[in-house]
Amino acid sequence: MDTKKQSINALRILAAEAIERANSGHPGIALGAAPTLYTLFTEHLQHNPKSPAYFGRDRFILSAGHGSSLLYSAFHLYGYGLTKEDLMCFRSLKSRTPGHPEHGITAGVETSTGPLGQGFANAVGFAVAEKMLAARFNKADAELINHYTYVLCGDGDMQEGITGEAASLAGTWKLGKLICLYDSNDITIEGSTDLAFTEDVGKRHEAYGWQVLRVNNGEDTEEISAAITLAKKETQKPSLIIVKTTIGYGSPKAGSEASHGAALGADALAKTKKALGWTAKPFEVPPDVTAHYKEITANLAAHEKAWNKRFNAYKTKYPEECEQFLTAAKGKAPDLTEIAELWKWPKKDIATRTACETVLNKLSDILPNLVGGSADLGPSNKTLLKGKDDFSHLTPHGSNIRFGVREHAMAAISNGIALHGGFYNYCATFLIFSDYLKHAVRMSALMGLNVTYIFSHDSIGVGEDGPTHQPVEQLLSLRSIPDAKVFRPADGKETAAAFAAALNGKGPTCIITSRQDLPHVDKTSKDALLGGYILLNSEKPVPDCIIMASGSELNLAVKAREILAVQGVDARVVSMPCMELFEAQTQKYKESVLPGSVRARIAVEAGSSLAWHRYTGLDGATVTMDAFGQSAPADILFTIYGFTAEKVAEVAKKTYRACLRKAADLPTGETDENV
Amino acid sequence: MDTKKQSINALRILAAEAIERANSGHPGIALGAAPTLYTLFTEHLQHNPKSPAYFGRDRFILSAGHGSSLLYSAFHLYGYGLTKEDLMCFRSLKSRTPGHPEHGITAGVETSTGPLGQGFANAVGFAVAEKMLAARFNKADAELINHYTYVLCGDGDMQEGITGEAASLAGTWKLGKLICLYDSNDITIEGSTDLAFTEDVGKRHEAYGWQVLRVNNGEDTEEISAAITLAKKETQKPSLIIVKTTIGYGSPKAGSEASHGAALGADALAKTKKALGWTAKPFEVPPDVTAHYKEITANLAAHEKAWNKRFNAYKTKYPEECEQFLTAAKGKAPDLTEIAELWKWPKKDIATRTACETVLNKLSDILPNLVGGSADLGPSNKTLLKGKDDFSHLTPHGSNIRFGVREHAMAAISNGIALHGGFYNYCATFLIFSDYLKHAVRMSALMGLNVTYIFSHDSIGVGEDGPTHQPVEQLLSLRSIPDAKVFRPADGKETAAAFAAALNGKGPTCIITSRQDLPHVDKTSKDALLGGYILLNSEKPVPDCIIMASGSELNLAVKAREILAVQGVDARVVSMPCMELFEAQTQKYKESVLPGSVRARIAVEAGSSLAWHRYTGLDGATVTMDAFGQSAPADILFTIYGFTAEKVAEVAKKTYRACLRKAADLPTGETDENV
Repeated sequence: MDTKKQSINALRILAAEAIERANSGHPGIALGAAPTLYTLFTEHLQHNPKSPAYFGRDRFILSAGHGSSLLYSAFHLYGYGLTKEDLMCFRSLKSRTPGHPEHGITAGVETSTGPLGQGFANAVGFAVAEKMLAARFNKADAELINHYTYVLCGDGDMQEGITGEAASLAGTWKLGKLICLYDSNDITIEGSTDLAFTEDVGKRHEAYGWQVLRVNNGEDTEEISAAITLAKKETQKPSLIIVKTTIGYGSPKAGSEASHGAALGADALAKTKKALGWTAKPFEVPPDVTAHYKEITANLAAHEKAWNKRFNAYKTKYPEECEQFLTAAKGKAPDLTEIAELWKWPKKDIATRTACETVLNKLSDILPNLVGGSADLGPSNKTLLKGKDDFSHLTPHGSNIRFGVREHAMAAISNGIALHGGFYNYCATFLIFSDYLKHAVRMSALMGLNVTYIFSHDSIGVGEDGPTHQPVEQLLSLRSIPDAKVFRPADGKETAAAFAAALNGKGPTCIITSRQDLPHVDKTSKDALLGGYILLNSEKPVPDCIIMASGSELNLAVKAREILAVQGVDARVVSMPCMELFEAQTQKYKESVLPGSVRARIAVEAGSSLAWHRYTGLDGATVTMDAFGQSAPADILFTIYGFTAEKVAEVAKKTYRACLRKAADLPTGETDENV
Repeated sequence: MDTKKQSINALRILAAEAIERANSGHPGIALGAAPTLYTLFTEHLQHNPKSPAYFGRDRFILSAGHGSSLLYSAFHLYGYGLTKEDLMCFRSLKSRTPGHPEHGITAGVETSTGPLGQGFANAVGFAVAEKMLAARFNKADAELINHYTYVLCGDGDMQEGITGEAASLAGTWKLGKLICLYDSNDITIEGSTDLAFTEDVGKRHEAYGWQVLRVNNGEDTEEISAAITLAKKETQKPSLIIVKTTIGYGSPKAGSEASHGAALGADALAKTKKALGWTAKPFEVPPDVTAHYKEITANLAAHEKAWNKRFNAYKTKYPEECEQFLTAAKGKAPDLTEIAELWKWPKKDIATRTACETVLNKLSDILPNLVGGSADLGPSNKTLLKGKDDFSHLTPHGSNIRFGVREHAMAAISNGIALHGGFYNYCATFLIFSDYLKHAVRMSALMGLNVTYIFSHDSIGVGEDGPTHQPVEQLLSLRSIPDAKVFRPADGKETAAAFAAALNGKGPTCIITSRQDLPHVDKTSKDALLGGYILLNSEKPVPDCIIMASGSELNLAVKAREILAVQGVDARVVSMPCMELFEAQTQKYKESVLPGSVRARIAVEAGSSLAWHRYTGLDGATVTMDAFGQSAPADILFTIYGFTAEKVAEVAKKTYRACLRKAADLPTGETDENV
């Protein structure tokens, strides 16, 4: 058996052994795609295992994240620092080898993958970032940015709609340095791809504007390598290399879905080793394989060295641009609370989407590397950066990204841009269509990425477009994502606070803006960054009741307080633009805003009540929107669904009285009231 | 001006006038696509405006739902019963002409559309249902089912990933009677499609296995009609007809995105009328146009008559099959609570996905028209119907639908099948990937469709696959959808109840099942259909505390109760498999399960806490999962995240004592406790 073949088999066997030990994992792709990964890592990928994060490296993304064991075997053999023991701890608690690749846990993992299609779309984002940075910083006599993005996909990735969306954009943008290796083994979990996947994937990608190459024998590293070489040469089109492989290669389950998602079992593993001529002890590799990997990795530091040299030459010639690049690459935004002009707003009614436009454009002046765009709703979301070009193949320096009507890919591409580094980036659509991209927000949160999501047209305020366009539950759906912030500002100042939370914080922030003008509210402030704060206090030291509200309903709370005052009920108004930030405050602060002794608490928000009960409890009440809306002008809808100052005051008074009765131990009515 | 042209212009002008009066709407597509709609409705669509719902009709779906005004104009002119006054009330409260087409509000609207891509995927579902019914019921000498599904799409639909997913399936399934009219006007909201949509849509559909036809002049009704004729002739492939049109045709804003989403304005409307030679008063049409529509609609009852004749002949020859068909078409499932075998379960541990498999297959025996499938996870979801064929072009009678890895299209296609009628249908994937299809569940709920969603692999119980595959917030996200039910059963009986809720109720039901075996719980019962019920009562008339739980955590509540009993704390255990059903019970019942006087309430669920605070209030506590999980064996995860009987008992005791202290007015600690 030749050493090269055994070196490829080493990738296979280590993966299969890790899975066997964990009794959990996906051997099929590891056995099938090993030659592809080997060829890429050995002959093409510009990487330095000893320094996996240097900026000039090629990026590699395993979109088929269930093939994690293959990636970890490679990281072990190529010297990324994963040990034999790490492989032995595959899929166990706190290991560096979790079930699917997790960015931040394992050096070399560029993005967390597993949910199919996300990694592919991330890769498009990586390639966008590379192209943008190259256009912005490279000079005729000094090149700074020039690297490829490789992504390995399986049949599952290729079936997901998000992948098609992202591929179409990659074609439009002519991302010539994006290369997709499609591990085409004709098998998915339910069986042959004939069951549900008979399309011509190559032709489809040609239709998107891709170069399509075919490798008929996925065991033939020369054929694979030649295809990658051709892919690298084509600079005007992204390339899809369809590599025909055999799932579970070498095992008795080869070619069958049985090899996909469960450990082979001791017997089949033994047979696989025998078939592949493998005799080493578990988790060991033969000396010639060790020597082979040592040889092929010996010079991998060279590319980083060359890049450092390029970088230093650039720095010398273009010190100012280099400084700009470094600032952007570090991804540290200036403290927005210090930028006075963001916090000065005229005392007039404003739609928060318009406030958003103002803030975004002020930020764009300050932060040249602010980029982003909308899923074909820029003029409606008000997220276009004025005076900036579009990002396109003709103007790759542009800042406005035109995503087309492709919400899911937009968000996942945005994650890719954020992961690549070099930009502050945002994306936008209507709040209702956050449904289409929600999982990508989850991925932003899971990876702690600073992507800013701008969702305009919130609530029944959308009006005539009707229930298909009126978000009711989307606020809650976004709030439910761990480590994501949802900010629903009431005016310009709170919108500035939302962007401060987004750019100066960690993880994604969803900024929810209104289509309609919102009545001016006095007293909003930077305190919005506390998530919830006392906007208007009660006259008494302890208020009779507390009215909490966010966004378009804050003005109702203010007016309701005035009505209640006339009726002798003393209300505190709490603006709660961001529950996640409020939850992050000290218990003392939270108690100062919402004292435990005040049980008459009313929440007002034109969205689902479920997020509010933690503050209103069993004795409070909610004026919320728990049903689908209707098609009618917005003002009519707000009235019929009870979003008026009078109704809020009425509910508050009733709640206050019920709490009084309860405190006095008198018979009560209902414990909770939804209006 | 010839009458036919003016009849087409009548569609345009009425639409533009309705929009103008509402000062809201989308004139661009109405002006551009009028000849296409006219040609279809006049020369091809088999429909009867006087009886818009007869089963044998062709289906027409306006996927580009923002073109509602065009559809309403057509419904007016073709005699569907929409009056001039209805058009004048466009987009106003309670009108029959809401902003986007709403199924159930306006006769003739086959499905609610607006969120792009949904209607297209619905149409694929309609065509699937037609093909399935034809295969099941048609006889060599008696044809019952034979109709086309037409769908009108715009550029936005064509960019959405869901559309690509659905188109790929339509190609695989060779849905020859699906015909898509693609209104290709090269304009989207942000401007020219060159900005973000440069792919070759025709070639892409050829790659999916479609016939692609082109109409170069979207004003030429003969060219359009010829293309539709060719499309109808091709029975082995779905057809895409790319109709090149001009957005905003006839108006001063023709060819510009300015015509897309706002009323033309009085001046532009006047100019449009002039350009089109239109002189009639607002909302009126010239007599020759009225006469023309009278003429072309005169014989539209003929197809229904012919269908009735076919139906009666069938009934005579095949009375039994006809009865089966009628039962299925009515969509009324037998009362599952009456089917004894569904409620008999051995006293042993069971994964609820396995219980689901048992119930599904028992139902499949009883209900031959039960169909459904998974997004390539059938063996994992355990949703395959044993002994039934796959639905495919070779076996169109099959019951198992192989959706491939296409969650979003799967759900929207399922909506189409449900809307078409003739089946009880379900679809399935992992709970984590409910994110990918959530908006289609929303559409099921908005339309009150009885689609059953089966989401297996709930919670950190997924184990080694890690945080990318462990649903944390998805339960809440689904619960947030108005009019949808989320059922998380704890065992076989509760799983049966979940299906009873699904098939005997209205609207969609999401059934959430576990991957792992769940310890056997005594005393579960059909009471699960109440949503929440007392599983084990306290010894005292009023319990010291109440522990609520669902699914995999119910057994923890039971064991915690035993631990507490030893410690002298008397707990009631409430099983809460379906909050929406519980909420629908009387206040009296709810009070009997959760008495207002008991404040020591603990919720235990391996998911987001936000859904539970309405029951636990400010004084209760939650043992929930509000962070991302980790990759490790499930039992380890349950332990480290506090899902043990001991921890639940500890939290319950602490909560009970804190409530006691509060009642005695002693100083308290924190008001809420998350573990």
